[in-house]
Amino acid sequence: MSTSSLIDLSTYPTRSPDDLDKSDARKETAKRVARIGELHQQLIAEKEHAVLIVLQGMDASGKDGAMRNVFADCPAYGLRTHAFGKPTEEEFDHDFLWRVHPHVPAKGEMVIFNRSHYEDVLIQRVHGWITEEQVDRRIDSINAFEHLLQYDNSTLILKFYLHISKEQQREELMERVEEPEKFYKHKDGDWREREHWDAYRSAYEDVIARSEIPWHIVGTDQRWYRNYLMSDIIVQALEGLKMEWPPLVTNREWKV
Amino acid sequence: MSTSSLIDLSTYPTRSPDDLDKSDARKETAKRVARIGELHQQLIAEKEHAVLIVLQGMDASGKDGAMRNVFADCPAYGLRTHAFGKPTEEEFDHDFLWRVHPHVPAKGEMVIFNRSHYEDVLIQRVHGWITEEQVDRRIDSINAFEHLLQYDNSTLILKFYLHISKEQQREELMERVEEPEKFYKHKDGDWREREHWDAYRSAYEDVIARSEIPWHIVGTDQRWYRNYLMSDIIVQALEGLKMEWPPLVTNREWKV
Repeated sequence: MSTSSLIDLSTYPTRSPDDLDKSDARKETAKRVARIGELHQQLIAEKEHAVLIVLQGMDASGKDGAMRNVFADCPAYGLRTHAFGKPTEEEFDHDFLWRVHPHVPAKGEMVIFNRSHYEDVLIQRVHGWITEEQVDRRIDSINAFEHLLQYDNSTLILKFYLHISKEQQREELMERVEEPEKFYKHKDGDWREREHWDAYRSAYEDVIARSEIPWHIVGTDQRWYRNYLMSDIIVQALEGLKMEWPPLVTNREWKV
Repeated sequence: MSTSSLIDLSTYPTRSPDDLDKSDARKETAKRVARIGELHQQLIAEKEHAVLIVLQGMDASGKDGAMRNVFADCPAYGLRTHAFGKPTEEEFDHDFLWRVHPHVPAKGEMVIFNRSHYEDVLIQRVHGWITEEQVDRRIDSINAFEHLLQYDNSTLILKFYLHISKEQQREELMERVEEPEKFYKHKDGDWREREHWDAYRSAYEDVIARSEIPWHIVGTDQRWYRNYLMSDIIVQALEGLKMEWPPLVTNREWKV
């Protein structure tokens, strides 16, 4: 794989700075999570914007936990999640965005992609299932696709790379074979994919660099720090939409 | 609408040349239609390519008839048609390609779009429901979308503009209010849209010129001539795929 990376993930921290107090951070996070709930309600009410959250990261980088915690105050009637696993045979018989497009958010909706269309330029590239020319074309298609969602449906796209260290991944994967309530998360395949760590890192660096809508690189070795960072980014982005509660629509013909 | 047309539809014939004998043409068309059936069978068997046929044209330009006649020898198990009418409320709450993408052909399949994603830069533009900036972006998105289908799923895209004269349209629409077996096709709205004839023509000229995958402009005042032209284009394009019957797959362990 030849990549001309403009970013170097090793320069991004996977852990919080020493001067951030964990207990303070958690209190702040709780406020932000509540604020995300309020803003989400306004998104539903106003129905002017769509929100697409993309979660990517190495195995055990905490995608499920992020969904559980950061969006804890978002009601299900305005929030959908969609996980992208191995494509089915029918999906393989179509272009790689075919299985993605139907799941994008409608106006008034927030959708979280647990993995996404980016898998098609990550796992498939690492294993050499597609050519480098195909990678280039797919990255162009991804940029055009995200641009379409933005301009033609007022979609706010927030992409998170959950940045875990190789050591922390080992700990997380070990927990899955040691703690009974985590057994269900264990897959032998995760350990095999771990052997491709460097190739995945390069693929991520390349795709993050060539993606027109910027990525947020979020340290996730400490889950509380991940929640602290993600919640901040989401609050700021949603506030940037400058949403307003819709005006009252009434003919005043009713009697109290 | 400001358009920088590179094509002028008035220079394209809507009728057959005088030296083409109708009866000869019909015989030739029948052969081609049968050949399309054979090639379609090979498409299904080989499962290496997808085929997308896009039919566009003014009202009463003969889209239904084209589907009925030119694809008469294609079995339903490898052919789907999808008509795009007025978007639903749910469709309006998404980008304009959202309702289109799920219907594109799988490998081994031929799909005919009766109207298509092009409506979103035609009727919406003629009525001023979208800005010219939106038109530009949508045309970029259409080119990126068709490019994706081509490179990522080996899709052959054949786009036909069924080219009818204003006089012939009048005749066709009149038949719909005069002949009982055509009453069901009549819509008062078609006569209202006819008043925008010139605006539609300009919009078609612009979109045909700016579309990266070329259009086939097919004279349709005489339906037999339309079938003659379309069947020729389709046979040539399908033969260009150089399809082959798949080799026998067997372990030879069975006994006759």
